[in-house]
Amino acid sequence: MLYGAIEAGGTKFRSAIYQDEKIIDELTVATTTPEVTLKPIIAFFSNYKIKALGLGAFGPVILNRESPDFGLITQTPKEKWRNFNIYRYFVEKLNVPICLDTDVGVAALGEYYAYRSRVNHLLYVTVGTGIGVGVIKNGIILRGAHHPELGHLLIARRGDDKYPSVCPYHDNCIEGLASGSSLTARYHLSPSQLADREDIWDLEGYYLAQAFLGYTLAFAPERIVIGGGVSAQARLLPNIRKHFTKLNNGYYIYPQLSNPDLYITLPLTGNNAGIYGAYCLVRGEG
Amino acid sequence: MLYGAIEAGGTKFRSAIYQDEKIIDELTVATTTPEVTLKPIIAFFSNYKIKALGLGAFGPVILNRESPDFGLITQTPKEKWRNFNIYRYFVEKLNVPICLDTDVGVAALGEYYAYRSRVNHLLYVTVGTGIGVGVIKNGIILRGAHHPELGHLLIARRGDDKYPSVCPYHDNCIEGLASGSSLTARYHLSPSQLADREDIWDLEGYYLAQAFLGYTLAFAPERIVIGGGVSAQARLLPNIRKHFTKLNNGYYIYPQLSNPDLYITLPLTGNNAGIYGAYCLVRGEG
Repeated sequence: MLYGAIEAGGTKFRSAIYQDEKIIDELTVATTTPEVTLKPIIAFFSNYKIKALGLGAFGPVILNRESPDFGLITQTPKEKWRNFNIYRYFVEKLNVPICLDTDVGVAALGEYYAYRSRVNHLLYVTVGTGIGVGVIKNGIILRGAHHPELGHLLIARRGDDKYPSVCPYHDNCIEGLASGSSLTARYHLSPSQLADREDIWDLEGYYLAQAFLGYTLAFAPERIVIGGGVSAQARLLPNIRKHFTKLNNGYYIYPQLSNPDLYITLPLTGNNAGIYGAYCLVRGEG
Repeated sequence: MLYGAIEAGGTKFRSAIYQDEKIIDELTVATTTPEVTLKPIIAFFSNYKIKALGLGAFGPVILNRESPDFGLITQTPKEKWRNFNIYRYFVEKLNVPICLDTDVGVAALGEYYAYRSRVNHLLYVTVGTGIGVGVIKNGIILRGAHHPELGHLLIARRGDDKYPSVCPYHDNCIEGLASGSSLTARYHLSPSQLADREDIWDLEGYYLAQAFLGYTLAFAPERIVIGGGVSAQARLLPNIRKHFTKLNNGYYIYPQLSNPDLYITLPLTGNNAGIYGAYCLVRGEG
């Protein structure tokens, strides 16, 4: 029994064939245009007879099953993907049942299953090119009339920070001030070239901590798992935890929040949260 | 068949006897100390044979049923109520089944039922002495490992605003900068005495809009209902809507969000959201 899984991120698409919880083949393609990115993916899946496909797509994407636009990517800064229906594309090309959610939603689901019932409520935050958040409540990917877009939560700039936001919509959202794109625009170096600059990771930690406190006050998760390219930086998590504790200032307390080293943490699944979560979303279907 | 309902707010406790969806008797007492506030409430309920009690309590309050401290009020600035177990008190005095949630949680539930299935996801925000938020998802009061505390969401101060926050924990949370207590501390007048000061309601609207955008990006509700003493001000809602639209800047879109006049709105239940919601929480129990 084979299942297909795709983590369709803003930087790259990772596709995999799963058999019994294990990847038996995979392919990674850069996110450029729908045509260029998706062609080799269809070729990849055509080598296998999959029962169904789990798809975690970057957003905003319409997830309301009743909408005729289910699967449509909407307000993304990636112009070539705006108004592209990623669900319909794969349904037409692969002709198998498809379970769709956001890339960060499925990543949160992957981490939830990796915790094997030791955690009921969990957030997955990716800090990469952009910033996105997936929310799990009792094993379900949470959304209201739309999926969360907490990469655009507004935060307070530090008084001396005058760098322009990289978000085309917001002057002081967390994606605009603290994403990988923002770091590159500010310092003209990649995050790994900035590895030892404590001042930089202090500011980055301060901004992310503001957002993490907001996420915490909203969802009271038992873990905030941080993934994405920027999360690999050794100085990042200690700075987020330090500022988080300072900003909360002893106000919001519950048992799972009491130890910031456990509460704000790296993924159990390493770089596999998204692809594993896409598989978790679909296994049993089809 | 009689049910008891209590909206235990930070300013006043409102108690009611419900019969068939209607209040047949009620009592309001100021929130001072547990002893002074609660004695007349017990006397009030002792006149009736209620089947069960719905209780919406100000928080933070422990709502984890497995905790030995279920019902304990914790980090409140109201010192006399800190470490008071409001659930245990009523269980001992009234000896009836009790359903407990937060005051804003039950208010959100009351509004949800008032909408009679026309809305699945709804937020209730009270802007009074403090600021609190209740979240409904598919008819259920949402919480993770703890109930939300979104009155303490951090926001960005306007550059020229140097007034100290009234929150003892946070320099720039929404309760600290935009609650009724903050308005009184800033201007030494009550909200109604400030009714015509457009400059004041513009700043208040700007702050609340930042928080409302954060709540929206997190939960994507179909309505944000605003109650509490400050919400009665005629200039408030237009200013929140104006700044909300400006801050979102066309980014986050879904059908129910498209008309700010419908999306950010006053309660259908008037001042009864909390007491009616406490009743909704308990009817059918006992």
